[in-house]
Amino acid sequence: METIKQHQVHGGTLRYLTHDSATTGTPMTLSVFVPPGEGPFPVLIWLSGLTCTEDNFTSKAGAYRAAAEHGLIIVAPDTSPRGDGVADDPAWDLGQGAGFYVDATQAPWTPHFRMETYVTGELIALIDAEFPTTGTRSISGHSMGGHGALTLALRHPDLFTSVSAFAPIASPSRCPWGEKAFTAYLGPDRATWDAHDATRLLESGAARGVYDDILIDQGDADPFLVEQLKPELIQAAADAVGQTVTIRMQPGYDHSYFFMASFIADHVAFHARRLEAVSR
Amino acid sequence: METIKQHQVHGGTLRYLTHDSATTGTPMTLSVFVPPGEGPFPVLIWLSGLTCTEDNFTSKAGAYRAAAEHGLIIVAPDTSPRGDGVADDPAWDLGQGAGFYVDATQAPWTPHFRMETYVTGELIALIDAEFPTTGTRSISGHSMGGHGALTLALRHPDLFTSVSAFAPIASPSRCPWGEKAFTAYLGPDRATWDAHDATRLLESGAARGVYDDILIDQGDADPFLVEQLKPELIQAAADAVGQTVTIRMQPGYDHSYFFMASFIADHVAFHARRLEAVSR
Repeated sequence: METIKQHQVHGGTLRYLTHDSATTGTPMTLSVFVPPGEGPFPVLIWLSGLTCTEDNFTSKAGAYRAAAEHGLIIVAPDTSPRGDGVADDPAWDLGQGAGFYVDATQAPWTPHFRMETYVTGELIALIDAEFPTTGTRSISGHSMGGHGALTLALRHPDLFTSVSAFAPIASPSRCPWGEKAFTAYLGPDRATWDAHDATRLLESGAARGVYDDILIDQGDADPFLVEQLKPELIQAAADAVGQTVTIRMQPGYDHSYFFMASFIADHVAFHARRLEAVSR
Repeated sequence: METIKQHQVHGGTLRYLTHDSATTGTPMTLSVFVPPGEGPFPVLIWLSGLTCTEDNFTSKAGAYRAAAEHGLIIVAPDTSPRGDGVADDPAWDLGQGAGFYVDATQAPWTPHFRMETYVTGELIALIDAEFPTTGTRSISGHSMGGHGALTLALRHPDLFTSVSAFAPIASPSRCPWGEKAFTAYLGPDRATWDAHDATRLLESGAARGVYDDILIDQGDADPFLVEQLKPELIQAAADAVGQTVTIRMQPGYDHSYFFMASFIADHVAFHARRLEAVSR
């Protein structure tokens, strides 16, 4: 791992890093905040939304005050492989910047678009090897990254202590962003999509009983709420299988980082409580 | 004033605005955060540094949590006039994005580069006319904007209740950034520069006794500290004339927004205490 930039913030150390990923076959960039103190610290993995790099959350979410207070490492990877020789699409909602946290099975996206294996395998191992972690972690994210956090947590319950999301794409198999991306990355057979759709995963009983609560914040002035995000679908699925999901509809808030900055401290505290409990 | 974008953040309302400025003869952009509640609220004017627009502080400083808590309006204008027909320079430290908060007296910078009159006249009047203010205000800023905050506060003590700065250019007449900008905007006669140099203004006794304290945060890992910023000059001038200036050298911090995000809440509280006292 190579450090590109390093900043002190809220008493901790923030690094922008790059490493050659064996999973994606490309350089991958990320940011890692390590709080003040000796550690070891539990980890919060943050997955960003469409068009983002690792920088949007890092510079705009204002998460590090709370992370310093609670003693949490925060890791924010880029949202896809990038670079020459990596497939892309002219649209902003497909290809580079839009990896959707799945392993693509379709050309031209294989072999680089393997974000699920990258996050759950290589990234976690790298962070535990290179930083003073407790070996425990939680996951959160925004929009496409909220979908990523929910699906990776439900598919890999052994890896995560807790999961939350901001304005997640709750059921990508039933919204335009998700249908477009899943068709491209996973192919036209919708039966293969359910395993990467948080609402369908909940309906199937995946990870039942693992998470005591799943915290979701959603702005009611979010322009993508009705057509793309559809939190009512995940609420219904959770109710049907007895999974507690707390969806906080935040009046007046939109889809921006200003929305996240307003509530990120609540999410950091939500995860910190649960990570402290398992570390004891 | 036209609203370009509006976001809810920390319970308050953030607007990106544009208006046709009679002072600069150009459209000027700014952001205004209004805290939750009815008001009226005192105002903090924030002046940004070289290369910045109104957006850098707005999206990266994380100031609105504290502003909502203390009930402060925060106004962040752009750092210069911009656009076709406005003089510019290929360098990043002169021209558009680098107005230095002075009224230029030299071609080609006249007539648009009139940032002192813009901030202390038109901007303040516009904010008091369009938003629920108490008519009291303080001023702060970063780097070039720290220079702006200090010099405008010392030159116009009737307008401001308190002043603070992050990593200000403490004595622009004695550093490369300032010498270049003042030569261009004010001309080669250095005698005209002293009135726009915070250290020289303090030495002259400007605003003596008006400000009970001037708060300055400065990172000791700031790469511009020795050559450009020179806080030791303003400290010496303040000591010589009996003005209290509190310079907090923050170990390990650099010149970035991560530094400002780490201490902005202290500055908001510093100004809020003083603004509340005069509003009572």
